[in-house]
Amino acid sequence: MKVAVIGLGLIGGSVALDLKTRKFATSVVGFDSNPTNARLAKKLKLVDQVLSLKRAIHSADLIVLAVPVDMILKLLPKILDQMGDRAVVTDVGSTKQEICKAVIEHPRRSQYVASHPMAGTENSGPAAAIRGLFDQKTAVICDRWSSQAWAVERVESFYDCLKMRIVSMASSEHDYHVAFVSHLSHVSSFVLANTVLEKEKNVNAIFDLAGGGFESTVRLAKSSPQMWSPIFLQNRVAVLSAIDAYIESLEQFRKLLKAKNSGHLQATMQNANRIRKVLDNLKGQKNDRRRSQVKESINGKKSK
Amino acid sequence: MKVAVIGLGLIGGSVALDLKTRKFATSVVGFDSNPTNARLAKKLKLVDQVLSLKRAIHSADLIVLAVPVDMILKLLPKILDQMGDRAVVTDVGSTKQEICKAVIEHPRRSQYVASHPMAGTENSGPAAAIRGLFDQKTAVICDRWSSQAWAVERVESFYDCLKMRIVSMASSEHDYHVAFVSHLSHVSSFVLANTVLEKEKNVNAIFDLAGGGFESTVRLAKSSPQMWSPIFLQNRVAVLSAIDAYIESLEQFRKLLKAKNSGHLQATMQNANRIRKVLDNLKGQKNDRRRSQVKESINGKKSK
Repeated sequence: MKVAVIGLGLIGGSVALDLKTRKFATSVVGFDSNPTNARLAKKLKLVDQVLSLKRAIHSADLIVLAVPVDMILKLLPKILDQMGDRAVVTDVGSTKQEICKAVIEHPRRSQYVASHPMAGTENSGPAAAIRGLFDQKTAVICDRWSSQAWAVERVESFYDCLKMRIVSMASSEHDYHVAFVSHLSHVSSFVLANTVLEKEKNVNAIFDLAGGGFESTVRLAKSSPQMWSPIFLQNRVAVLSAIDAYIESLEQFRKLLKAKNSGHLQATMQNANRIRKVLDNLKGQKNDRRRSQVKESINGKKSK
Repeated sequence: MKVAVIGLGLIGGSVALDLKTRKFATSVVGFDSNPTNARLAKKLKLVDQVLSLKRAIHSADLIVLAVPVDMILKLLPKILDQMGDRAVVTDVGSTKQEICKAVIEHPRRSQYVASHPMAGTENSGPAAAIRGLFDQKTAVICDRWSSQAWAVERVESFYDCLKMRIVSMASSEHDYHVAFVSHLSHVSSFVLANTVLEKEKNVNAIFDLAGGGFESTVRLAKSSPQMWSPIFLQNRVAVLSAIDAYIESLEQFRKLLKAKNSGHLQATMQNANRIRKVLDNLKGQKNDRRRSQVKESINGKKSK
C-alpha cells in the first residue's frame, strides 16, 4: 500500500515514522505547505519522499490528512476532488462534526473515513515526531455509516499498524465527549498558566517553587495556539458548555472553602479521587474490549 | 546523628529511605499514629525501628515532622515541650504561617526550623514511599531568623542529603506563592475531575477517550483529601484569591471564545506558552543558583 501523509508535524510525522518502521506501506510520501517544515521532515527522514500536494495525492492508496482542523476544512474537499476512485482519505482532526458537514454532499464522501487518533504531546512540528506515539491509545472512527466498508477497513488496518484500539461513534457524540475529556483540559491548563504568570511577575522567585505538581497541570499550556484555536472555535458550543460546568464547580469549591466547610471539602475531593479507579480500570479493559468493538464496527452499526 | 521521622507516609517514608541509604544518620527511627501504617512501614523497612512517639522524640538529634498540616499544629508544641535542649525539629508541611504562629511564643521556638520540601506524588501512605523523591527539587526554609543558626545548619545538611536546593523566605511569602504554584494546581485538578465525572455518567463511553492530555491534567485529583483539606483551610485567604484570579481568567477566555475572537484567543494561548521557557530556564538555573542561595541563607538574612 502507498500512503501519503499531508502535514508533517507532530502527528503526521509520528504516523509516518511508525508506518515506515512497521512495514505497513511500500512507500510513505509526504507534503507540508510550510517549506521549512517540509525541509526538516526530509532531513529527519520522516517520509521516503516529500512531494507536491498534487503528486502526493495522486500516488496514494491511503491519504492521511494531519493538518490543523481549519486547514482540514479547506483541504479535504480538494483532496476528494483529486484522488483516485480506489483511494481512501482519513483525517486526524480533534473535531469531527464541522469537518463531516463540509463534505456531506461530496460525490466521493464514502471514500472519506472521519477519524481521530487520541494521542499527542504538548510539542509540535516535524522535530517533535516520535515513534510509538499512538501505541495502546484510542482511535475514534466517526459516522462510519457514511463511508464504504472497504474504506473503513483500510483505515482500521492503518490504526491496527499504529497499535491503537478502535472505537466508533457519531461525530456529534465525539465532539461532546472530547469537549470534556480533552478540550476542557487544554483550556484549564492554558488559563492556569496565564493566571500564575500574571500574579507572579517575579518569575524567578516563584518558579523556585514549581515542583509540587504544577508542571504536570500546566503541561498542556505549552500546546500550539495555531492548532488549538481552530479546535476550540469548531467545537465552540460544546467547549463553552464544558467551561461553564467547570466554572460552576470551581465556584462550589470556593464556597465550601470560604465557609471553612471541611467535611464537604473532603467529600468533594473524595469524589474527585474516583478518577484514579476510572483511569486504572480503563487501562485494564483496553485489551479485552478491543476485539469485540472492532467486530461490531465492521458491521457498520452506529455503536454507542 | 540520630533522626526520628514522625509520620511514615509518602513524604516521611521517602525521607527515611534516603537518609538510611545515604548514611546521613546512624539510626532512623519512626512513629505513625495509625497502627496499620506503622506495621506497614516496619514491614517495608522504611525505618530501623518503629517506636512510641515519646521514645522517638527522646532518641533524636533531628525530628522530622511529616504529618498533615492540621496534625502539625497539634504535635509541634508537644514535641518542643518534650525534646532535648540540643535537638532540632523541622516540619515538611505545605503551609507555613499558621504553623509558625502556633509556636511563636514557645520557649524552644529557636530549636524549630520551619521548612517545606516541594516534592510529592499523587499517592499516599507508607507503600507510596520511594527513593530519590526529593532529588533536584526545592526545599524552602521559612522565617530562619526565628531559629538558632546551628539548628538551621542541621536542617540544611538534612536537605543536602536529600539532594535538594534550598531557598529561604518569610512564611507569609511562602504561603502566597504556593497558593498559586501548588495549591491552585490541586484545586483546578480536583475540580476538573469532578466536572468530567459529573457530565460523563457513562464512564466507559467517555474514558475510552481519555488519552489526550486528560491524565496529566487530572493527576493531582488523585491526591489525599485528608492531607489537602487542612492545607486549603490553613492557607484559605491566599487560596481563595488564587481561585478568584483563575475564575476571572477562565471567564475572559470564555468571552473570547463566545465572540469567536480567534486573534485574541491565540494571543492568550501564546502568552500561556511562555510557561515552557520559564520552566525550562528554571531547570538550567537550578544548579548554578544553589550555592549562592545557601551562602546567603547561612547569614540568616531574609532572602527574596
